[in-house]
Amino acid sequence: MKGLWLENKQLQLRTDIPIPEAPPGEALVRVRTAGICNTDLELLRGYYPYTGILGHEFVGVVAQGPENLVNKRVVGEINAVCGKCRFCRSGQPTHCENRTVLGIVNRNGAFADYLCLPIENLHPVPDNVPTEVATFTEPIAAALEIQQQIPLSVNQRVLVVGDGKLGQLVAQTLALTGCDLLAVGRHRDKLANLEARGIKTGFAEAVTDRAFDVSIECTGNPEGFAIARRALRPRGTLILKSTYAGNLSLDVSSLVVDEITLIGSRCGPFPAALDLLAAEKVDVQPLIHATYPLSDALAAFEQAQRKGVMKVLLEIS
Amino acid sequence: MKGLWLENKQLQLRTDIPIPEAPPGEALVRVRTAGICNTDLELLRGYYPYTGILGHEFVGVVAQGPENLVNKRVVGEINAVCGKCRFCRSGQPTHCENRTVLGIVNRNGAFADYLCLPIENLHPVPDNVPTEVATFTEPIAAALEIQQQIPLSVNQRVLVVGDGKLGQLVAQTLALTGCDLLAVGRHRDKLANLEARGIKTGFAEAVTDRAFDVSIECTGNPEGFAIARRALRPRGTLILKSTYAGNLSLDVSSLVVDEITLIGSRCGPFPAALDLLAAEKVDVQPLIHATYPLSDALAAFEQAQRKGVMKVLLEIS
Ligand SMILES: [Zn+2]
Ligand SMILES: [Zn+2]
Ligand SMILES: [Zn+2]
Ligand SMILES: [Zn+2]
Repeated sequence: MKGLWLENKQLQLRTDIPIPEAPPGEALVRVRTAGICNTDLELLRGYYPYTGILGHEFVGVVAQGPENLVNKRVVGEINAVCGKCRFCRSGQPTHCENRTVLGIVNRNGAFADYLCLPIENLHPVPDNVPTEVATFTEPIAAALEIQQQIPLSVNQRVLVVGDGKLGQLVAQTLALTGCDLLAVGRHRDKLANLEARGIKTGFAEAVTDRAFDVSIECTGNPEGFAIARRALRPRGTLILKSTYAGNLSLDVSSLVVDEITLIGSRCGPFPAALDLLAAEKVDVQPLIHATYPLSDALAAFEQAQRKGVMKVLLEIS
Repeated sequence: MKGLWLENKQLQLRTDIPIPEAPPGEALVRVRTAGICNTDLELLRGYYPYTGILGHEFVGVVAQGPENLVNKRVVGEINAVCGKCRFCRSGQPTHCENRTVLGIVNRNGAFADYLCLPIENLHPVPDNVPTEVATFTEPIAAALEIQQQIPLSVNQRVLVVGDGKLGQLVAQTLALTGCDLLAVGRHRDKLANLEARGIKTGFAEAVTDRAFDVSIECTGNPEGFAIARRALRPRGTLILKSTYAGNLSLDVSSLVVDEITLIGSRCGPFPAALDLLAAEKVDVQPLIHATYPLSDALAAFEQAQRKGVMKVLLEIS
């Protein structure tokens, strides 16, 4: 089968990869559409060691698996877990000690004709959700994780920093809580997407110091972190939604003096994300920049790496 | 009156300071005993700008003030607040925007014959608590703040990093919750204080990676932070109890991947601290290294700055 292979910071479009055999408990999925995400770009830059097929945001059709899923469109949670370690047993499977992660850690990913995932990871896509829209299930679930970590209410002043793919989904999902939301970024056109949905937006200068109860850092750069930090009132909460290249230099003393809480935030609930998509409460269309066939995956990655480009999709079957 | 004056990183024992006049709403307190704290040493090193009399941990006797307090022994909360700003109105007076802080921010401190504080800041010392013991009320309150920020239960594995003054009080107060506690440090004799109270202790090598639900960093150095960090299970909580010289370089990406929570922690509840002292549930005697008269304050500071020295007290009247 075809697959986009990463090895030593080099991408290679291979056609010689054997179709995987699903081990017991897993299903074989024929991939239809997959999205390129910042994590893929970071893996390509070598921030984390990984050799294999990239890709973890996908919609596919079950080729082999339980009868109730075969021929159904599905999305898949990316952590394949052992079910036995202390984190699995304590209800935190996304932190399984022995996990593999689709296209990220020791498990071939979605930029290929086929992938395998544990059956329990798969969720059928509601009929009214188009395939390219459902490709956003994973990042929307990640955005919803914030609301699992911190309760948000109507009176809370919340700041989203970053108007890229992640910031857009975070802002859209947070807006649904009715909180007092401001989203800031650097791109007038991207902020306009959010304005069109009734979300207040602005540039960094619009952020009043020490005025927000919660800020969410979605840029992955130190400047974004600095904005999210200065925006917080004492005892405010800063949610870290992005990873960073290398270490970040922090004024930890000021976190102590202001009793700030920092929370790292990663994967979230797929069912809730699919519900939002089925109810059309999140609009991902403005985020789709371009769609390429898998045979043009290298061009798609070049595109995805350009500044300001939103989601690039790969159409696979 | 006499007072220990800080100006341009220089300490000066002055005798020419006028006895302050208590403004409306404040009391005049004759200081009896005061403790030298790491914050005082940091102010001396110029980490924060401050000019004036140092000192914020004290027991005194009310010289002028409301009838029910005059001639009573008192301790005092260190933040003098405006009562009007948004933080005061929202029940977070320790974060008042217009606060002065005894011996730390724009308010002369306790290493002097007299100090002034708002009447509402003062708490009578229970009769059965010796004066030198009550001098620890402020740091014990700071230690108790942890329990206000994160609920601790019997099953939780909690690590305290640091066997200095702060670590000792944090470990002693946390032990009272019945949590599964380990305290680590670098000094066999200091750890022995905690062992004597039935607290498990060890050196850094005793800390199993990714095994603790909560860790509390009480060292103020990057090595201590690293131990507290590696000890945490995914979704664990790291409480920052110390301030740091300069910035700390953090692997923020790993906080995101492991969904770690960092919480800065500062001043805490005085009444609860006095209750613990009255009930003799915290033992501060092993923490008292030496007591000096105010006239020997410079020698006391030299002593307090030596490695491994615990609390140095000033006896003032
Ligand atoms: Zn992703
Ligand atoms: Zn597991
Ligand atoms: Zn102190
Ligand atoms: Zn105030």
